[in-house]
Amino acid sequence: MWREIDNKLVREFRFKDFQEAFTFMTRVALIAERMDHHPNWFNAYNYVRIELSTTEGSEMVTDRDRKMSHAIDAILE
Amino acid sequence: MWREIDNKLVREFRFKDFQEAFTFMTRVALIAERMDHHPNWFNAYNYVRIELSTTEGSEMVTDRDRKMSHAIDAILE
Amino acid sequence: MWREIDNKLVREFRFKDFQEAFTFMTRVALIAERMDHHPNWFNAYNYVRIELSTTEGSEMVTDRDRKMSHAIDAILE
Amino acid sequence: MWREIDNKLVREFRFKDFQEAFTFMTRVALIAERMDHHPNWFNAYNYVRIELSTTEGSEMVTDRDRKMSHAIDAILE
Repeated sequence: MWREIDNKLVREFRFKDFQEAFTFMTRVALIAERMDHHPNWFNAYNYVRIELSTTEGSEMVTDRDRKMSHAIDAILE
Repeated sequence: MWREIDNKLVREFRFKDFQEAFTFMTRVALIAERMDHHPNWFNAYNYVRIELSTTEGSEMVTDRDRKMSHAIDAILE
Repeated sequence: MWREIDNKLVREFRFKDFQEAFTFMTRVALIAERMDHHPNWFNAYNYVRIELSTTEGSEMVTDRDRKMSHAIDAILE
Repeated sequence: MWREIDNKLVREFRFKDFQEAFTFMTRVALIAERMDHHPNWFNAYNYVRIELSTTEGSEMVTDRDRKMSHAIDAILE
């Protein structure tokens, strides 16, 4: 479900409503603090779009991003 | 699972870890703001205890508490 | 600080770090649930961009958006 | 403001309302995940009580608790 677009891992999520979407975002925020790796993300009501990338000189997808994408997927299982 | 103890509706929850517990709490907080009715609650790592009651002169369990308990249960379904 | 761009109220915020930015977002989320009016927003680490608009046939800025922008400003005072 | 009671660091906080209290709690939750050290805490509307301790055989106050208490205090400065 994650696609690599312009050197970023990107996934879109749709939830029932804002409550469910923001609850998911809080879980991602806690993961982000623990991993010390933070998403670029957009939310509109029940829609969340997450972009993961690492800046090492230029922007690229690294193992940190892949690890975080797996941790995010695990929330929804 | 909710028990009525000392004029309060009480339920205990156990989650996998703190992340999961606090994510649940965020959802309850959003419900509380929407309902304008707020829990008394305690958290220790993966454990959450919620007490619901309404103060109308004295403390008692009212329909607002029952409605909120149902909304909380619906999170976990 | 809010500007009206393309029929939306838009404001950008910069915080010390992700913790501070996401804490702010949680407060906005609680306001949104209480007002039953939700932002379109983007976050990257310490940066938050909020767009407020109302869809009534077409997208426009209404009093609901202005009221929400004031409530958001009040967080930071 | 933190007192050592029964081998725990304890502090009580009062906020304007639930929104402000839960926003504070979210910040503490992010700190907790980053430090991998979690509070025992109670909330009722605008009131938050935090207890910090470390279990090493028995429960005691350690440098981890003092460090976390300082990080929590820094939120409110």
